[in-house]
Formats: sequence, C-alpha cells, structure tokens
Amino acid sequence: LNIAVLAGDGIGPEVVAQAIKVINAVGEKKGHQISYQEAITGAAAIDEVGDPYPEATHKICMEADAVLFGAIGHPKFDNDPTAKVRPEQGLLRMRKQLGLYANLRPVETFPSLLHKSPLRRDLVEGADFMCIRELTGGIYFGEKGRSEDGNTAFDNCVYTREEIERILKLGFEYAMKRRKKLTVVDKANVLETSRLWRQIAQEMAPDYPEVETQYMFVDNAAMQIIQWPKNFDVMVTENMFGDILTDEASVITGSMGLLPSASIGLHTSVFEPIHGSYPQAAGKDIANPIATVLSAAMLFEYAFDLKEEGQMIRKAVSASLDENFVTEDIDKSQAKKTSEVGDWLAA
Amino acid sequence: LNIAVLAGDGIGPEVVAQAIKVINAVGEKKGHQISYQEAITGAAAIDEVGDPYPEATHKICMEADAVLFGAIGHPKFDNDPTAKVRPEQGLLRMRKQLGLYANLRPVETFPSLLHKSPLRRDLVEGADFMCIRELTGGIYFGEKGRSEDGNTAFDNCVYTREEIERILKLGFEYAMKRRKKLTVVDKANVLETSRLWRQIAQEMAPDYPEVETQYMFVDNAAMQIIQWPKNFDVMVTENMFGDILTDEASVITGSMGLLPSASIGLHTSVFEPIHGSYPQAAGKDIANPIATVLSAAMLFEYAFDLKEEGQMIRKAVSASLDENFVTEDIDKSQAKKTSEVGDWLAA
Ligand SMILES: CC(C)[C@H](C(=O)O)[C@@H](O)C(=O)O
Ligand SMILES: CC(C)[C@H](C(=O)O)[C@@H](O)C(=O)O
Repeated sequence: LNIAVLAGDGIGPEVVAQAIKVINAVGEKKGHQISYQEAITGAAAIDEVGDPYPEATHKICMEADAVLFGAIGHPKFDNDPTAKVRPEQGLLRMRKQLGLYANLRPVETFPSLLHKSPLRRDLVEGADFMCIRELTGGIYFGEKGRSEDGNTAFDNCVYTREEIERILKLGFEYAMKRRKKLTVVDKANVLETSRLWRQIAQEMAPDYPEVETQYMFVDNAAMQIIQWPKNFDVMVTENMFGDILTDEASVITGSMGLLPSASIGLHTSVFEPIHGSYPQAAGKDIANPIATVLSAAMLFEYAFDLKEEGQMIRKAVSASLDENFVTEDIDKSQAKKTSEVGDWLAA
Repeated sequence: LNIAVLAGDGIGPEVVAQAIKVINAVGEKKGHQISYQEAITGAAAIDEVGDPYPEATHKICMEADAVLFGAIGHPKFDNDPTAKVRPEQGLLRMRKQLGLYANLRPVETFPSLLHKSPLRRDLVEGADFMCIRELTGGIYFGEKGRSEDGNTAFDNCVYTREEIERILKLGFEYAMKRRKKLTVVDKANVLETSRLWRQIAQEMAPDYPEVETQYMFVDNAAMQIIQWPKNFDVMVTENMFGDILTDEASVITGSMGLLPSASIGLHTSVFEPIHGSYPQAAGKDIANPIATVLSAAMLFEYAFDLKEEGQMIRKAVSASLDENFVTEDIDKSQAKKTSEVGDWLAA
C-alpha cells in the first residue's frame, strides 16, 4: 500500500502522525506492506518553495494509491484573500490536477458528543447521512475576472453532462448501499446549471428503481438539515452549494472535530479530516486526532477496498470514546494528549 | 398612503386581508388616508393572463408608495422547474423591474415560540440580527444558457461596484442604528466577485469608524449561524449566499411563520412574509397572519418613516402572543382562526 502523506500546516503534522501509527498497527496485524512518501503543501510549502502545491508534491500524489492529508492554512494569509500566493490555491490546484471530483463527507453523531450539538438532542440523535459534493467543477473553476477599470467582477459557473453524470452515479450507488434515499440539491428554479443537474438526475433515476430520489432547492436544504437531519440518507450537490451545506451539516453533530472525509479522484484519492489547521493549538500535543484516524479508516475502505481494516479502526475509535480516553476538546478535566490518544488507538 | 396589494397564491389572500385590517385600524387611529390598489401575481396571474407579473401589475406597483405582497407558488409548478412560465419568474422580474436591490430580514425570537426552535434554547434565546441580501444582481441575473447540444450549461455571476456599494452602504447604516457590528459574508478565497465585495467593504469601512466590520466566508457563516447566532448584529451578503443563509437563519428561531421582510427598491418597496404560499392550508382560515402583519409594521416604518405606527402593530402582535390568541401552528389546543387573529390585532 503506497500512501502519500501531506501533513500540511498547524496541527496537520501532529494528527497525521497519529493516523500513521494506527495505519501501521492495522497493517502489521493484517500483514500489509505499507510505504509512505512525505510531501510538502500549504503555507509550509509556500514558505519553502513559494508554491502551496509544488510539482514534486503532485508527482508523489500521482504515484500513490492514496493520499493522507492533514490540514492547510496559516493566519498570516487570513486577512488578505487577494494575496498572490495562498494556501487555498494549492488545495484547489490539487483537486483539479488529481481529478478529485467527489468529496464524501459522512455526517455522524457520537453519543458521547451529543451534548455539544447546537441542536436539540431529539432532532439530531441518530442522524446519519452522507454528503457528496462535486469538487472540480462549477463556479470554483469557471472563468473569472475583472473589467479593465476593476469595477466589475465576474465568476462563471459551468457544468457539463459528463461532470454531472459521474457524481450523480456515485450518489445513486451510495444510496443503493445505504438506506436507498437520494436527495439531489440544486436551485433549478433559478439556475440553468441546476436545471441540467435536475434533468440528468431525472434521466438516471429510472436506472435505480429501488432508490427514492428527491429534489430539493438549496435554500430549503439549508433549513431541513437543521430541522430534520434524520430525513437524509445521501445528499448530492454541486461544488459551491456543497461547500456551504457540508459545513452546516457537520456542525449540527457537535462532533466536527471527529469527522473524516474522502475525495475520490480520477488519478488517486485524498483522505483528510474536515477540520482546519487550528494554528492556535499547533505544537501543543492537544489536538484531537480522531478525524484524521477515521480518515485513515476511509482510506482502507475506499482506496484499497479493505473493509475489515476500516472496521478495526472504527472500533478502536468507538472504544476510546466509550472509555473517555480523549483529548481536551471532549473532556477538559481528564484530557489526554494527542500522542497518547494515537498510541492508545494503535495499541 | 398609496399601497399596492399583491395577494398572490395559496394563503396569500387570507393573510394579506388581516394585514389590511391592521393597517386600516392604525390609519384610522392616526388619521392617515390609505388607498389600496389590488393587482394579480403568481400562479393566479398565470392562470388569468399567462404571466406571473403582468405589465398592469407592474404599473400599479410603480405608482404605489409601497407594495404589500402575500405569497406565490402553486404545487402544479413544483415538479417542473423547466416549465416555460413559472410563478418564480414573476417574482424575479418584479425584483428587477422595481429595482428591489436590498432584501431585509430581521431574525428575531419570540419567547412563546422558543420551544419550536431546533436549536438549544440557551444558544438561540435573545438572538436578534438583521440579514441584508443583495437581490437584483449576481448569478440570479447574469447571462445563463446551454451549449447547442444542451449538454453544457452555464450561469454567470456578475457584480458591479455600484451594486455592491449601495447595499454595503445600507449594511453600514443599519449597523450604526443597531449594535454597530457588520458581518460581510463572501467567498473571497475563491470568487473574484467576492474579492470585489471585500475590497469595496474595506474601502468603505473607514467611513464608519464606530462600526466593527467583520469578514466571514460563507461556509463559516453557515456554521456560525447555528453555533453562535447571538454574535451577529447585521449581516450583509450577495444574492445567492443570501438566499441560503437567510432561510437558514429564519429557521433557527422556531418562528419562521412570524417573520416579515422588506425589499427596498429604487422605485418602490415591497413588504412580505418570508413564508411561502402553503397551498395545503389555503382557504381554511387557519394560516398564521402574523408575518404579514409584521410586514405591515415594516411598511409603515420603512416606506413612510412612521415609526410609531409600526410600534403600535408590534405591540399588538406581542400582546396576542402573550395572551395566546394565536393560530393552530402555535397552539393546536385553543387555536383561533386567521380572521379572528386579524380582528383581534386590529381591535
Ligand atoms: C479553503 C476553501 C477553498 C475550501 C473550499 O471552499 O472548497 C474549503 O472551504 C473546503 O470546503 O474544503
Ligand atoms: C422562489 C425563489 C426564486 C426565491 C429566491 O431564490 O430568491 C425564494 O427562494 C426567495 O428567497 O425569495
């Protein structure tokens, strides 16, 4: 198993180190040969070579079966979104160059964390759905620019049938593997791209007769995620809507710091926690490594089709939560260190 | 006071009728001469003349000092977003033709409705902010279309300095009248239009030294609205983000059925409840008229600068909630009819 490791900025290196301990433990138990190739990205790469996603890093990713990614971002870039070189540009370039067309985010609750949810417990307890966000198209990657005088700006949103079909296919397939309900989120009452999405979904739906397909406007989805999160099974949407709705969906669980993600690509796939680089905590050995460890579980399952290995990791994580062997974000009074939690999970 | 009345579809006519009772009562008490011009819109207008916003209706709006609007939409259009003529098109055309560039939505909680909020009471109790959404620009009104083979679709998002300045000005001014905090929501790390928004906001901020201006990415805003709604005072954003975030913000209060809105225009202004046409309830005299009645309060305040008249209406609404003289959505066991609540409020 050939894994590229892009630890990135802030707490990235610390949490990735714990995931590697866990991957190694599973690999040893199950007799897998695992090799790691480390590469730089994010603010760290800007500092070193002036590019947040250097060609050398891209090459390592292209040659890997899977990429384990930490987090990127540094406060020095935060208040200047117009800076010439920014960590996010590396992220977007990585997505495009690796063809990471589908971002998968399981939204799950953990009983021991439900008290942290901003929602009423009865509404959110048991919520369990999968957000699938298109990640290499739409307004993120369309033509953008300014008029000559700088006083008019534009961003073009474009979608092709091919882009829409491949992500909807994934949506229908996940629905088949889960509770057989697919919610296609768009703004077909206003946008032409959304009308193409809905048209193609309506063409494909008859091929999945067991799946109950539902169409929902994005403004309505933003409400339903809060009001009835348990009604969702698989949700699929375009890039910009997905950016907003997946973050909204994560936060209702109260367990944002524990949630993993997978970005499925044409060339390789990337596994990363959904939380950020959390610079205030960097180097303090206090960050919660669980989201990255669960990303490693997804890595086994999605990149190598090794379900049992993924399950082993999930069981270890559940056990650590049940036994309250956790970092300070979960229990301040008896907090364990990042590295202690990593050791415990690996053991 | 010359008011155009566009009752629209579903429960629109019933709730608008109650608002008119209340406006008349206030007008009588304070000695205002009020004239109403009724006009058709929405599905009702499609049925009658094949156009959801006919020229005759537009003319009546243009001649009015303010427009009282009910709701539009009918289930027969719901499952066909590609239908040639749709009620929403009338709404968008009305916004554009009346130059309704700013949609204002106060997000408020009502003590007697807090138990209906999906959020934990401690998080949402006392939340009180104003969402200002740009309403006549951006991706809603940019060029849109298909490739010849129909397999590629696009929507262009465009913003000009002029459009951005006038709405940000409103944002700063509202912040000055309130708790002096303005949150500018954008996606300046990805979109060129957002970078223009942020640039202009940064240029204007020094003119309002008392206002604390905060910049927030839209994905983060979608989280913060749920996590810390009390941190917001005035939020301003572009059309598409505003569509999503204002609906999200309304739903956290538990009082969506009570919330009004104002759309400030170049030619006239439109006042309407934020809820929809609720066709299932149409004609049953059960719909809650409060959102429309509070829209009438905004109408007095915003269109005619008659603050006291607005206050009288707000006091009546508070009293009806305190005395539990309310429709079935609030109290099923002792529900009053729509028309009874209207009479009570007017009295
Ligand atoms: C950092 C930013 C460009 C990125 C995005 O908008 O896609 C982030 O918000 C995400 O969701 O991964
Ligand atoms: C009906 C639709 C076109 C409209 C919009 O998206 O603006 C509605 O959702 C709203 O917010 O008023």
